[in-house]
Amino acid sequence: MHTEQRARAHELLRSRSIDRALFAAPASVTWLTGFAPPIQTGANPFAGGPPLVWYESGEFTLIVMDWFSSQAVPVINYPGYTYESPIASADHLAAIVRSLVGRSRAGTLGVEARHLPAFLAPSDAVSIDGLLDPLRAVKTADEIETLRRCFALADAGHAAAREATRAGKREIDVWAVIQSAISRAAGQRVPLGNDCVVSRRENNIGGWPGDFELRPGDSLIVDLGARLNGYWSDSCAVYYASEPSDRQRATHNVVRQALEYAISLIKPGAVANEVDRKVRQFIADAGYPVYPHHTGHSVGVSPHEEPRLTPYNTLLLQPGMVVMLEPGSYIPGEIAVRLEDAVLVTADGAEVLTRHNKGLP
Amino acid sequence: MHTEQRARAHELLRSRSIDRALFAAPASVTWLTGFAPPIQTGANPFAGGPPLVWYESGEFTLIVMDWFSSQAVPVINYPGYTYESPIASADHLAAIVRSLVGRSRAGTLGVEARHLPAFLAPSDAVSIDGLLDPLRAVKTADEIETLRRCFALADAGHAAAREATRAGKREIDVWAVIQSAISRAAGQRVPLGNDCVVSRRENNIGGWPGDFELRPGDSLIVDLGARLNGYWSDSCAVYYASEPSDRQRATHNVVRQALEYAISLIKPGAVANEVDRKVRQFIADAGYPVYPHHTGHSVGVSPHEEPRLTPYNTLLLQPGMVVMLEPGSYIPGEIAVRLEDAVLVTADGAEVLTRHNKGLP
Repeated sequence: MHTEQRARAHELLRSRSIDRALFAAPASVTWLTGFAPPIQTGANPFAGGPPLVWYESGEFTLIVMDWFSSQAVPVINYPGYTYESPIASADHLAAIVRSLVGRSRAGTLGVEARHLPAFLAPSDAVSIDGLLDPLRAVKTADEIETLRRCFALADAGHAAAREATRAGKREIDVWAVIQSAISRAAGQRVPLGNDCVVSRRENNIGGWPGDFELRPGDSLIVDLGARLNGYWSDSCAVYYASEPSDRQRATHNVVRQALEYAISLIKPGAVANEVDRKVRQFIADAGYPVYPHHTGHSVGVSPHEEPRLTPYNTLLLQPGMVVMLEPGSYIPGEIAVRLEDAVLVTADGAEVLTRHNKGLP
Repeated sequence: MHTEQRARAHELLRSRSIDRALFAAPASVTWLTGFAPPIQTGANPFAGGPPLVWYESGEFTLIVMDWFSSQAVPVINYPGYTYESPIASADHLAAIVRSLVGRSRAGTLGVEARHLPAFLAPSDAVSIDGLLDPLRAVKTADEIETLRRCFALADAGHAAAREATRAGKREIDVWAVIQSAISRAAGQRVPLGNDCVVSRRENNIGGWPGDFELRPGDSLIVDLGARLNGYWSDSCAVYYASEPSDRQRATHNVVRQALEYAISLIKPGAVANEVDRKVRQFIADAGYPVYPHHTGHSVGVSPHEEPRLTPYNTLLLQPGMVVMLEPGSYIPGEIAVRLEDAVLVTADGAEVLTRHNKGLP
């Protein structure tokens, strides 16, 4: 489990002459080990710090409180919740890190300093922030299977959202139906992003669902990302509270064409910022406002990662990359359309991974 | 807004000769400023680090990415999400912290080193981890009003749970109904803990809802904590999939009596570990297994905080404290009862803040 990830990481660390390392970024920990702690209610109040991964002599060890275990790697547990004595989990965790770091002075020690809490930071370490990130851009076969399941969950959410969207409902009412459908489909609680906003809002590009009520003539952006086993999906659709106006329909169709055009551009060797530029141009050429955000990005152990399809990014697409494509067009307070699919870069093109209805026709 | 909290913190910092400070614990940031970022989907992928509070010359300043603002305190924003250039939010945040820390060398600088990321840690700081925690134990009048609203949300969840619990339903099915009821009542997404487990499970004390199905004869522990405006409620009840057995009914009634007894013990001057000991003894005297967890704790900007009602804690209760009381009795795989109320310590006793049905009769 996640052996390919650890092999890639080991090779990179060796090439950089990093002999020992302490990983603290949630994405790194999940990617290296498959360990994905619950996140819905914030940091665990009984843990001494975030889950960590220690790397030494080519081996990876997970350091977590005693509620948690791993099928993939050796684990060092420390006491978390206690009631017969005060909770001292931070002290236990600090002692473990001190002991691991201190048992050798040989070679270079790397730490993810952007996520490692200061009280655990060794004094003689070098930063390895972001070092693993590029390794995550090409997905393993197992990761692609996991992502398919994540996208299927988002699909289930969209089926429920399309059904639930109508005048008189609030954003949060639709969201509650989506969340219920997804958690029941998964058989467990599922962290769920991203946006659920009515077109009549002044900021109608994105945002969390509130008590804003759909009226006839409104549309609803439903941008869903569900996390399962530590991996995120993404997806976006637009549903209508009533029969759409000619203008809504025209905008929706242009964005749909832009999305289809974007999909057609995805293949090995395609350049991220060229795809970005061409899809923007497509919307502009059609005479519609161009979206003030990225054209796309990837997902995985984080909901937004490389490759980013953005004006500055000269990265080349490779087989095994998963790319979200999400062109849109917005007029504040009036029109808001964003449609998003996921594609897998294959040997000679792209396979669409999302199956959700994107609203209209 | 939160002025009383900042006044208490300022007084304490001055008494400890802390001239400047950097707060990084989520609980400290929310308690000092009222700022409560979304937490349901984990850390914000576009933020350079956690929200921070800078303290200098008696003033508190919130440091957050540009999506966020504050009604309560001055804010320093830094760029978070960007698409026309690479995301550099961590660099922006580091520059701000460097500038604040570096503009003066006078006096002592304190940092919350258990939550401050290492890359932001000044070299010449002292730890102030946990320094504010005792200040949070007595709630302000505004906090008590906020908590009443949080408890009302949990009450709404319980009403839905009681209705939804029946044979053939899975834990996650009941949970989905609860979550929907609470988010619709709040008009927004609500982070929701804690436990939803069937009595037939081997570990039937707590855990997240899964696809475990209720059968006739089973009961369901529903332990709900909802976060609103950064403040957590808590509550626990037990619902039955069918007519309860004599043994279930007897256990439930003993735990109910233990809870009533616990409430009767709460008043100013009561000692935390004496309350704990007496309630345990009540269950033991009735001839039932004593719960292997705390008797109670408080809630606020964290879901578990002082006063803890535990065997070691000699803390005295004071007016304005909010105390959760949650005795239980468990036989693995068979019987699981925990009933929980919140009480406010008043001038001469306690006011029960929770109104939820606790199941049976």
